[in-house]
Amino acid sequence: MERDELLLAMKDRMPEKRYIHTIGVTDTAIELAKHFGEDSKKAEVSAILHDSCKYADRDWMKQVIIEQQMDPTLLEFHHELWHGPVGAYVAKTEFNVTDEDMLNAIRFHTTGRALQSNLEKIVYIADMIEPNRKFPGVDDLRAAANKLELDDLMIKCISHSISFLINKHQPIFPDSFKCYNNLLLQKKGKVKE
Amino acid sequence: MERDELLLAMKDRMPEKRYIHTIGVTDTAIELAKHFGEDSKKAEVSAILHDSCKYADRDWMKQVIIEQQMDPTLLEFHHELWHGPVGAYVAKTEFNVTDEDMLNAIRFHTTGRALQSNLEKIVYIADMIEPNRKFPGVDDLRAAANKLELDDLMIKCISHSISFLINKHQPIFPDSFKCYNNLLLQKKGKVKE
Repeated sequence: MERDELLLAMKDRMPEKRYIHTIGVTDTAIELAKHFGEDSKKAEVSAILHDSCKYADRDWMKQVIIEQQMDPTLLEFHHELWHGPVGAYVAKTEFNVTDEDMLNAIRFHTTGRALQSNLEKIVYIADMIEPNRKFPGVDDLRAAANKLELDDLMIKCISHSISFLINKHQPIFPDSFKCYNNLLLQKKGKVKE
Repeated sequence: MERDELLLAMKDRMPEKRYIHTIGVTDTAIELAKHFGEDSKKAEVSAILHDSCKYADRDWMKQVIIEQQMDPTLLEFHHELWHGPVGAYVAKTEFNVTDEDMLNAIRFHTTGRALQSNLEKIVYIADMIEPNRKFPGVDDLRAAANKLELDDLMIKCISHSISFLINKHQPIFPDSFKCYNNLLLQKKGKVKE
């Protein structure tokens, strides 16, 4: 499927506002991919599909997580975290995405994880800084995107996400914490890449 | 050993400022234990001994961690985190503390951990809010100590510690993260106590 066809499929699955967000993430992911020398076509398709399950039925998502033997920890956490992994499943089964890197970019776009690929980082960051996002600190993150190395930018973004959750006293999904620590320990040369 | 004898032993092991901190933690731990209905004698002795290894030789601590088969993850992190686990070893071998709860209160006083006992929480909190501590937000934590349930107070303290590290882009020891998440998920009834 090409861009327009995929976007049309997304339009049917989400409210107008989320569709506009999807286009924002897509354009930002393409820009970031070009800026950081990654495959912009992979970034584009992963970004278009990243929120395909944002409004999917909660019970159905739970069933997919169980049947597809996804990380059972997901079910201990807020259902907001389910649409990434289930979205990867939908990308594969409904939209014929077979590239594991693209599937991971969709799968981990909300939580991050240790040892992300560059494509995964790009989709995570694009989701956070696309032009329609409005939250305190977002302009700082956008400005950093033009200045920092990809890993440093990712550290800034995941730090922001974790701090936001801590300020609200919300649990943090283990993959997000591992993402943060792994990036920092890599920088310090304490763990293998 | 009694209070005065233990304090004298600590005085030899640390600079004046840290010794004053130790007395502050001890008095605060006793107060908190009385306030929350826990054993104030156990709180007192654990608090006196909590920093016995704060100025211990780094190579020796590393050797103890390896020889005593402590969590090997410790060695990937800053040596500042070593004095708790090694301090528990010293409490047992040099000061004849055999109570496992007291040893855990010393062992995890810097990091916290999932499923802390009340004594562990008390020593962790006392270390953070004793009267000589000066950092932005400490008065807020002190005020909370008189108002909140022990778990809510612990959530506030561990949140503060993690946020502080994230703001400095420092790695977070996994036990601290698990401590935070476990307390919140317990509150939501998602995990067993």
